[in-house]
Amino acid sequence: MPRSQSANRQIKLGAVLFGVGGPGDHDSWRNPEIPGDASVDIDWYIARARQAEAAKFDLVFIVDSQFITPDSPPHYLNRLEPLTLMSALAVSTTNIGLVGTLTTSYNTPFNLARRLASVDLISRGRAGWNVVATGDGGTAANYSRDEHYDYESRYARALECVRVVQGLWDSYEDDAFPRDRETGQFVDPSRQHKLNHKGRFFQVQGPLNIVRSRQGQPVIFQAGDSDEGRDLGAAIGEGIFTHAPTLEAGVAFARDIKARAAAKGRNPDHVLIQPGVRPWIADTDAEAIEAERYERLHKDFGKTLAQFGRPFGWHDFSQYDLDAPFPELGDLGNDSFKTQADRIKAVAKERNLTLRQAVTFFSEQHRSPFVGSPLTVANTIEEWFRAGAFDGLNITVTIPSEFAKFTDQVLPILRERGLVRAEYESDTLRGNLGLPVPENRWTQARRATDEAVRDTLVEA
Amino acid sequence: MPRSQSANRQIKLGAVLFGVGGPGDHDSWRNPEIPGDASVDIDWYIARARQAEAAKFDLVFIVDSQFITPDSPPHYLNRLEPLTLMSALAVSTTNIGLVGTLTTSYNTPFNLARRLASVDLISRGRAGWNVVATGDGGTAANYSRDEHYDYESRYARALECVRVVQGLWDSYEDDAFPRDRETGQFVDPSRQHKLNHKGRFFQVQGPLNIVRSRQGQPVIFQAGDSDEGRDLGAAIGEGIFTHAPTLEAGVAFARDIKARAAAKGRNPDHVLIQPGVRPWIADTDAEAIEAERYERLHKDFGKTLAQFGRPFGWHDFSQYDLDAPFPELGDLGNDSFKTQADRIKAVAKERNLTLRQAVTFFSEQHRSPFVGSPLTVANTIEEWFRAGAFDGLNITVTIPSEFAKFTDQVLPILRERGLVRAEYESDTLRGNLGLPVPENRWTQARRATDEAVRDTLVEA
Repeated sequence: MPRSQSANRQIKLGAVLFGVGGPGDHDSWRNPEIPGDASVDIDWYIARARQAEAAKFDLVFIVDSQFITPDSPPHYLNRLEPLTLMSALAVSTTNIGLVGTLTTSYNTPFNLARRLASVDLISRGRAGWNVVATGDGGTAANYSRDEHYDYESRYARALECVRVVQGLWDSYEDDAFPRDRETGQFVDPSRQHKLNHKGRFFQVQGPLNIVRSRQGQPVIFQAGDSDEGRDLGAAIGEGIFTHAPTLEAGVAFARDIKARAAAKGRNPDHVLIQPGVRPWIADTDAEAIEAERYERLHKDFGKTLAQFGRPFGWHDFSQYDLDAPFPELGDLGNDSFKTQADRIKAVAKERNLTLRQAVTFFSEQHRSPFVGSPLTVANTIEEWFRAGAFDGLNITVTIPSEFAKFTDQVLPILRERGLVRAEYESDTLRGNLGLPVPENRWTQARRATDEAVRDTLVEA
Repeated sequence: MPRSQSANRQIKLGAVLFGVGGPGDHDSWRNPEIPGDASVDIDWYIARARQAEAAKFDLVFIVDSQFITPDSPPHYLNRLEPLTLMSALAVSTTNIGLVGTLTTSYNTPFNLARRLASVDLISRGRAGWNVVATGDGGTAANYSRDEHYDYESRYARALECVRVVQGLWDSYEDDAFPRDRETGQFVDPSRQHKLNHKGRFFQVQGPLNIVRSRQGQPVIFQAGDSDEGRDLGAAIGEGIFTHAPTLEAGVAFARDIKARAAAKGRNPDHVLIQPGVRPWIADTDAEAIEAERYERLHKDFGKTLAQFGRPFGWHDFSQYDLDAPFPELGDLGNDSFKTQADRIKAVAKERNLTLRQAVTFFSEQHRSPFVGSPLTVANTIEEWFRAGAFDGLNITVTIPSEFAKFTDQVLPILRERGLVRAEYESDTLRGNLGLPVPENRWTQARRATDEAVRDTLVEA
């Protein structure tokens, strides 16, 4: 291993809390283990977060979406909002990180900065923000806009928004509040700073009316597979949520992101690649393979077809002949999940697929590569990790007993091998992820000035 | 008493959690009982909310502001954000209501609806929203606006925003989710509704992706003393937060608001008047009077003068001669707290006051009328309540032992007289406040149609 840090690095673990089921999962809610209203039941979330915390996970991850129709998957239809959910989990746990998805397209940076900073203080340094720019174009109609932002401005806006939020987070230096009961000095005015940002999308004066937490700033997560998405992740992401269909694809993605980050002057060790994974675990490999196969083959094709329409703005594909050549879709998808939509169109054309074949092809892309006995799954995870396919895994959590198989049967094997932690190293999210606490920019600037002055004096 | 309900009505109680001190309170943070960082310490808030819940309070109340300078009062400088704070308190309490201040000027209705509904579910029906339109004009610069909204459009926007939020809250009827594990039906599409709002300020399609709680919708609170403010309160307010300097002023205000509400076709019993109060309690009347007087006379005049500038957009009054006639201010304050600013200008002119006299005059207006021994304070509260000056009181909570004097010494007297509850009647906020659960508008519309059809059949 070329890097000294890599010798004793461990796999970071996230638990993606999906309530009644994640994307494409239309049936988990029928499992008697899950309350039918799990996605709006705070007790369900608290129990899962504590289950993950007992297993020493780094974080829970809350995904999001805001545009629904009656045909949306169960978890989309009716769910708790991430920010309020994170805050409730903050006082219900002690060490685990809390990462929530919030869009830069339909929130203002001052509100984002303030609410995320508040969760960071309430959790005493355990908040993370999954930055998204919103793919569902229909969301625009819920926010007084005729049209969704176009692709380019959505990403430019996201980058500017994150920079403004991070700037606001530094409004107070860490020594801003002497709170001297004797002299009566509560605040040191020289340690409160306006941002005075004037940019393409936002003009924000500041200061923000809240201090930094013990971890300095919430941790920034991002997911995005397009060229623009990868650049944004390389620029701002400290954790990258992704999908790795194969070991090779995982390695290629991780290398690409880390190279882009290094090119931007960042330390690639501080950009953690974390694919989402739903492991299938049973006593034997054969049982696990059969269970995964059974669920996959018994999916309702109509619902899979409806989900297939999402990258194209929830386009209704049931209007086409399934066995005719893949339909001509023109620009459809450009205002939604463009990269996914473009890839589907290209593959369907290149391979000359029918609609049915295309749907099946892309469903197969989402088959879990982590299927087998606890030992097999642990071995696969170790192999991928050592090959550099990821820094951590985000485990899909829907059915509690399925999650327990991972925590109680797979993790002990990995722990034995030193690949996952036995105890938390820290009670902040940055501390557990091995990420540095960012120094306040104003403190840093003053320190730099002071050093320059001192150097001048020494030379003189 | 003319109304049957009034015979056994009780005083509603709110606890206004002020951390290191409310408006104009620059010194409480020096009290050794209060952690210097109380305003950002979730444990302080949880302890106070539980103290209020143990005393069977109806609700805790979280005020807010977003524009600061280095001279802002301590609690303003650095505080938890209301929405995230409410959610953390929701899982830390069981019966008490949670009312948070959120502005309609710098939030979008979809985000407001979703986040408040989420807190309402997390608390299992205990959320309330204090609707404000933002008085501090400087806030605009934090939200990419050159200027604050003018007075008229701020109030019109607030009304439209609340109506949109309430419309979104009804997106799902209460029977929308059959979740039939046998048939596989999760949602009943006929019970999910778009709002399709197209108004002056907002265009919002919906549906919102979250169900109603057990109380139907969060309770709407409002504060506003101007003609526009009173009309808004009478239109939307189920609780009205106000200031009552004297019994007579309280009675006049309550009568006015209830008359305005009745004129709008609302039941005046469902508009609860709740002045904010800081009681001064000691073993004897003389001790209490002396304690209140001591604190008042030892206020730092410079800080009182800075606070005096708030209605005028935090105008700096230290530039004027204190003993010269009150300065000519022109339109100053029109974009901030206009009603307060206009009143100050008018009174200063009418009474020919110097600046110093004006500052003192308006400070006196905020002297607490509830000063004395526990028995005296209980008697005063009973007198005001029976005269119709309020339906409830919002007690300022900063110093825990001061609050304990109210809960442990005054409340038992009022409880003995049947004027406050001994046990919660309900575990929802509406239940405890005696407010009805609003029927879902779509359910109501269908019921009305069904009844009309049935009547036609009966007649035929």
